[in-house]
Amino acid sequence: MRCLICLAVFAVMFRPAAVRAADAPKKNVVLLIADDMGLDLGCYGNTRIKTPNLDALAKNGVRFSNAFATVSSCSPSRASLYSGLFSHSNGQYGLAHADHNFHSKPTVKSLPRLLNDAGYRTAILGKNHVIPKEVYPWGQEIPVNGRSVFLVAEKARQFISEVGDRPFCLVVGYADPHRAARGFGNETKYPNVPEVRYDAANVELPYHLPDQPDARQDLADYYQSATRCDHGVGLMLKVLDDAKKTDSTLVIFISDNGIPFPGAKTTLYDAGVHLPLIVSSPVQKKRGRANLAMVSFVDVMPTILDWAGVKAPPELPGRSLLPILDEQNPTGWDVVYGSHQFHEVTMYYPMRMVRTRTHKYLLNLAHQLEFPFASDIYNSPTWQGVLKRGDKMLGQRSVESFLHRPHEELYDLTKDPNELKNLAGDPAQAKVLDEMRKQMRAWQEKTKDPWVVKYTHE
Amino acid sequence: MRCLICLAVFAVMFRPAAVRAADAPKKNVVLLIADDMGLDLGCYGNTRIKTPNLDALAKNGVRFSNAFATVSSCSPSRASLYSGLFSHSNGQYGLAHADHNFHSKPTVKSLPRLLNDAGYRTAILGKNHVIPKEVYPWGQEIPVNGRSVFLVAEKARQFISEVGDRPFCLVVGYADPHRAARGFGNETKYPNVPEVRYDAANVELPYHLPDQPDARQDLADYYQSATRCDHGVGLMLKVLDDAKKTDSTLVIFISDNGIPFPGAKTTLYDAGVHLPLIVSSPVQKKRGRANLAMVSFVDVMPTILDWAGVKAPPELPGRSLLPILDEQNPTGWDVVYGSHQFHEVTMYYPMRMVRTRTHKYLLNLAHQLEFPFASDIYNSPTWQGVLKRGDKMLGQRSVESFLHRPHEELYDLTKDPNELKNLAGDPAQAKVLDEMRKQMRAWQEKTKDPWVVKYTHE
Repeated sequence: MRCLICLAVFAVMFRPAAVRAADAPKKNVVLLIADDMGLDLGCYGNTRIKTPNLDALAKNGVRFSNAFATVSSCSPSRASLYSGLFSHSNGQYGLAHADHNFHSKPTVKSLPRLLNDAGYRTAILGKNHVIPKEVYPWGQEIPVNGRSVFLVAEKARQFISEVGDRPFCLVVGYADPHRAARGFGNETKYPNVPEVRYDAANVELPYHLPDQPDARQDLADYYQSATRCDHGVGLMLKVLDDAKKTDSTLVIFISDNGIPFPGAKTTLYDAGVHLPLIVSSPVQKKRGRANLAMVSFVDVMPTILDWAGVKAPPELPGRSLLPILDEQNPTGWDVVYGSHQFHEVTMYYPMRMVRTRTHKYLLNLAHQLEFPFASDIYNSPTWQGVLKRGDKMLGQRSVESFLHRPHEELYDLTKDPNELKNLAGDPAQAKVLDEMRKQMRAWQEKTKDPWVVKYTHE
Repeated sequence: MRCLICLAVFAVMFRPAAVRAADAPKKNVVLLIADDMGLDLGCYGNTRIKTPNLDALAKNGVRFSNAFATVSSCSPSRASLYSGLFSHSNGQYGLAHADHNFHSKPTVKSLPRLLNDAGYRTAILGKNHVIPKEVYPWGQEIPVNGRSVFLVAEKARQFISEVGDRPFCLVVGYADPHRAARGFGNETKYPNVPEVRYDAANVELPYHLPDQPDARQDLADYYQSATRCDHGVGLMLKVLDDAKKTDSTLVIFISDNGIPFPGAKTTLYDAGVHLPLIVSSPVQKKRGRANLAMVSFVDVMPTILDWAGVKAPPELPGRSLLPILDEQNPTGWDVVYGSHQFHEVTMYYPMRMVRTRTHKYLLNLAHQLEFPFASDIYNSPTWQGVLKRGDKMLGQRSVESFLHRPHEELYDLTKDPNELKNLAGDPAQAKVLDEMRKQMRAWQEKTKDPWVVKYTHE
């Protein structure tokens, strides 16, 4: 199986120089979305996990080291990718499926709609998780088990073959490394997909998890699932090469939200929203570098539209990344915003975030409530272990402060990157707090946040 | 204009005896829905308001004196009428329009779908307020200003004329007595609709409103709007008579939720959910009586399906009222349930209710939050007056206890019909409390309440 990985890596790294020509046609888009993957990639500094294909993609493209999801929940985050809007604007306030049943608003001018109108062949392969179809009219919705990544690549091969010379936008929704009903889907064998296991003793435990065997094993299982996704990315890039589309295709790899462990997914702490974003364009000049710009997932849709030559709707708050692909620390990219309302429909906990290079300001609009748990995180070995042992700490953060939060949180990330010491009540920080409050309010008003305009209109 | 009212009343009261024959064909349905109307009808004991047409309808049919909405919010309540399900089951957790964007679940087998399948011509005229269309596929959605009640009746006349001899189900969504952007739409003149004004000194002030000029005038304006709706009902019944459909049509009059004043609409107090329900069937034997059965709005859909000879889906919790139309105090109708989640999307406040003839038990699932205000109620002259004066009381209830509620509320309605003295902490009531808790839990499990099963499945 190892040879399969090598093959994919080879295909990515040794593409001929001609392919990289600056005058290559801007045409196709492949957007690869991991499900619940954090910054656990070799190219993002994790030395224990194996992600050779994503590392190779980063080497051939640009890795954004300060990329932030707008929200740490699957449907809302994907809706921000496909609508270019924050979740309080696009209406996808929470999960789309089952009892949750959240829908994006009919007024949304979505990515598939705009690309369809521009003559693109659009398709989404695997996980979609935003509704309704009328708002997101993908030309094709191709069902496939998103962990069976060889099959995913073959479905992509078929789509690209059918498209012929027409421009296309293919979105691939992987199912890894999301939790399965039990574990991370690692018990199943997937055809032509290597099984890469990890030693629980040899994982990089993040600050918000307890150093306990159950949490370590949980994380090792997550690594295995993440590596399966990485393998899928390698296969997908080989499909592009085989179809001779590499020189005309913008490839974007991204995750929807942080890891499915307490302290990450569904929070607006960095562990929930600071995520991988790798862009590889055939026309970029510098490759293999990190770009320090603070970019938001609402920038992804303007980037794709820019690539496709389609005018972005004026209401979009984001900006195209294409002009800064070759830069390392572009000016004017120093703040991102976040907006969370729900995950499951029972999990009301609206939050707002302003995040600069040095500080984070969080507003917990329903702070009177206990912070709610996603079912999968609640039932995880990690959290059940915390409950069983009666732990007071969740890694470096107290369980109490995780569950019961104040109205406002302010963190100085230069001294406190793990967001453990809330400075909102510190008189020495009053000026910073005041500025960030104003910044947040201006953003909320500009983006017509319903949680602000309440009581001012019918 | 007075003569127009008389004409309509005449049409209702003096329908020929032949029309009432027990063997008349069960065929058509007319469901008339007032918007935000409380029990402010002459036939329900209000001596100050003029509702001659509804009084006449009650005289010709049966007035349910213990009818309860499942929820006091427009879209969720209407969804319970059209789905036969509680709002936590049908997915219509809150308002359907604008930013709120709540949708019923695709699994709902709705009234229009079942009637369409049975060969009925279905239509909804005026206010609908549930989505999506795929779940509620009314044969026609006929737009009309729901306060222009003469026009409403004429649109109904046209629909019934086009239907010919085929069975039909016509739902009429009036816009009265809902608040308008300003007031109750009373400034506008509506063609062929009399203007009936009320003296603010001469209204029946409910227990939950302050005896202040602003609240009295607000209520007088509401009365005017309610009387306009009553006039519309008279016109509608005349249309039925003109079309010779009275002897084959089941007529139901209902409201969606309580009056749009603080203490009523959006609460599960009786002022929010104890509402008018008048049924007039050509085959009933006893007329003009009150029926004391405790009935729920989830009983409306099974009633209509029973009338139409269509089998009700087994998951429906309600029962047909047809077998008890001629009774006064039938056995086995002694408890109703309520389920509220939202009104506007910013107004998360899930509540559950068990209401027997003697007691009410309320569960406030997010009691840590301040009870949220609907925009229209917040901006009403009544509430703005309370704020301006800094009132401590909202009628007989303290503002503080209205805004900040305990987890559980228990009221002995035999001694405390206005639900002012919470007995949930009273040791003498421990047995009653325990029984009602069990009753609620059993109902929640039976109806698959997502707010119960949380954490027990993914």
